[in-house]
Amino acid sequence: MWDRFLRACRGEPVDTTPVWFMRQAGRYMSEYRAIRARHGLLEICRRPELACEVTLQPVRSLGVDAAILFADILLPLEPMGAPFEFAAGEGPVFARPVRTQADVDRLRVIDADELAHVYEAIRLVRRELDGKTPVIGFAGAPFTLASYVVEGGKSSTFEHVKGLMYREPETFAALLAKLAEVVRRYLRAQVAAGAQAVQLFDSWVGQLAPDDYERFVAPHSRHVLADLASTGVPVLHFGTGTATLLEAMRDAGGTVIGVDWRTPLDQARRRLGASVPLQGNLDPLLLFAPRELLAERVDDVLRRGAGGPHVFNLGHGILPATDPDTVRFVVDRVHAARP
Amino acid sequence: MWDRFLRACRGEPVDTTPVWFMRQAGRYMSEYRAIRARHGLLEICRRPELACEVTLQPVRSLGVDAAILFADILLPLEPMGAPFEFAAGEGPVFARPVRTQADVDRLRVIDADELAHVYEAIRLVRRELDGKTPVIGFAGAPFTLASYVVEGGKSSTFEHVKGLMYREPETFAALLAKLAEVVRRYLRAQVAAGAQAVQLFDSWVGQLAPDDYERFVAPHSRHVLADLASTGVPVLHFGTGTATLLEAMRDAGGTVIGVDWRTPLDQARRRLGASVPLQGNLDPLLLFAPRELLAERVDDVLRRGAGGPHVFNLGHGILPATDPDTVRFVVDRVHAARP
Repeated sequence: MWDRFLRACRGEPVDTTPVWFMRQAGRYMSEYRAIRARHGLLEICRRPELACEVTLQPVRSLGVDAAILFADILLPLEPMGAPFEFAAGEGPVFARPVRTQADVDRLRVIDADELAHVYEAIRLVRRELDGKTPVIGFAGAPFTLASYVVEGGKSSTFEHVKGLMYREPETFAALLAKLAEVVRRYLRAQVAAGAQAVQLFDSWVGQLAPDDYERFVAPHSRHVLADLASTGVPVLHFGTGTATLLEAMRDAGGTVIGVDWRTPLDQARRRLGASVPLQGNLDPLLLFAPRELLAERVDDVLRRGAGGPHVFNLGHGILPATDPDTVRFVVDRVHAARP
Repeated sequence: MWDRFLRACRGEPVDTTPVWFMRQAGRYMSEYRAIRARHGLLEICRRPELACEVTLQPVRSLGVDAAILFADILLPLEPMGAPFEFAAGEGPVFARPVRTQADVDRLRVIDADELAHVYEAIRLVRRELDGKTPVIGFAGAPFTLASYVVEGGKSSTFEHVKGLMYREPETFAALLAKLAEVVRRYLRAQVAAGAQAVQLFDSWVGQLAPDDYERFVAPHSRHVLADLASTGVPVLHFGTGTATLLEAMRDAGGTVIGVDWRTPLDQARRRLGASVPLQGNLDPLLLFAPRELLAERVDDVLRRGAGGPHVFNLGHGILPATDPDTVRFVVDRVHAARP
């Protein structure tokens, strides 16, 4: 069933639980490392034929039920006027973090066509997949993008971005509004180019108390998600550490709510309602467990997810040290377990 | 009321809500920086007269309802055979991370008296405070200590410690058992030296799914907490990102359950029962907010905490960039709001 992922997202019956993985294209695969040895990360993102090739690798080698475009959530930030580099082993580093109203004023609300290489990559992937596997587009959510651009990179305390949120709520709102409008245009353009679903990654939103999420962040996520609802494609809304935010994230929008491993899917189901499709939520570290424990926990995720529409995934991205054989084992086990 | 902190911990009536802060002695205070300019962090921990002086600083300047001994949760690890250094701006770095059964076998289950300087500091603090303010001792919980010693320092993925937990559960259990026994002895000795309450910091336990916490970690925390219950002093059991772990943490033990800012205290209260004293839970970043917003949120924490015994605190430690005047403002506002 080529479209079991899309059917599950829409709450329609499926022959078996669909499965894909966040970061399914990446360093844990030798085919990816072979390309990465010759090309930089951003170069791969910016050259459609390379992005297409990397996107297809896990579809070929794992048998997953969806391709997700190879890209980086930070791509829109450079044309907006916030350039960054990937420092070795450190993740992204922004030369000039955005921390004042003047900094926010300088950011450009770019037109979608400034990221044309992304749409070209989606078109290539669609052509190559030829209707056999759907392709997912994605973007970072306003808060998560803001966290990178305000912190100037990764953070453990999120003190600059949350400090800005509390200290200068108008500046923070202006930043999130610009990011939200860019993300809205960017995701609409991905759908127009052929993305059959899109995921909004609010990876770091779990840093926020529920009241703060609703007050400072949800309106901007809603700006993106409400608009995307009119495209007709499923929209996956994902974050980590969101145990106390799930209802608010559902209310902000999205067809499918992504859940990390900290919240058992049956609990999430009870809270969100049986009709809300859920995605998740195996701990990525379980891919390092012996097969017996891994199988037990895959089955547990399936059992807890069985009370409504479910897309199997990890609770966060695949780690580089993961063995691809283990990932294949999970795909096969999920598919073998009839719902 | 000198003992309102201890009374709240025991669920007894208080004249007003007691308040103290995690990391209330630290870099945000000029008095601390003056001492730190002349002495290393570990030197302060190891010299009782310095540790005592630093412990007393926030009691004098903030008017908090408890002193917490100045120390580091990693102190027991060096005598156990896992030496570390504080690298500039990077936190602790262990020369040889513990990752195999042989590594675990080499760790010594030290006697409490190998940390005699800590108890001496407690005795000095007790003498200086002269019954006017109670003093809290503390230790890291087995999982949180394991996370440092297995990762070799701070981590964002916790992949080594969780990888060990899943891949070699016996090795992981042997490590946590050794850590738990050392922590048990260490906290008992702190109580014997005069600590009037102790806090078990399981700061990183929120990385775990509930099932994993119960299966792999809770038995070791329970080893510590069950034994401490017989000392008669209140035991505070704290972690961050614990929204889905609160019941399991309560069941593992502790008189007071610490809650971070992600879980509103009234929700925590409903889940844990009105008789369980709660500690928390203002977001430390709210100390960077304008007074009006800060006051609103302090009041909100007090209101949500009012359904049972409550010790006001942050949801995690005070950040170095915090203004001490703001901390004083919070103390005064908490005290002014009669329960």
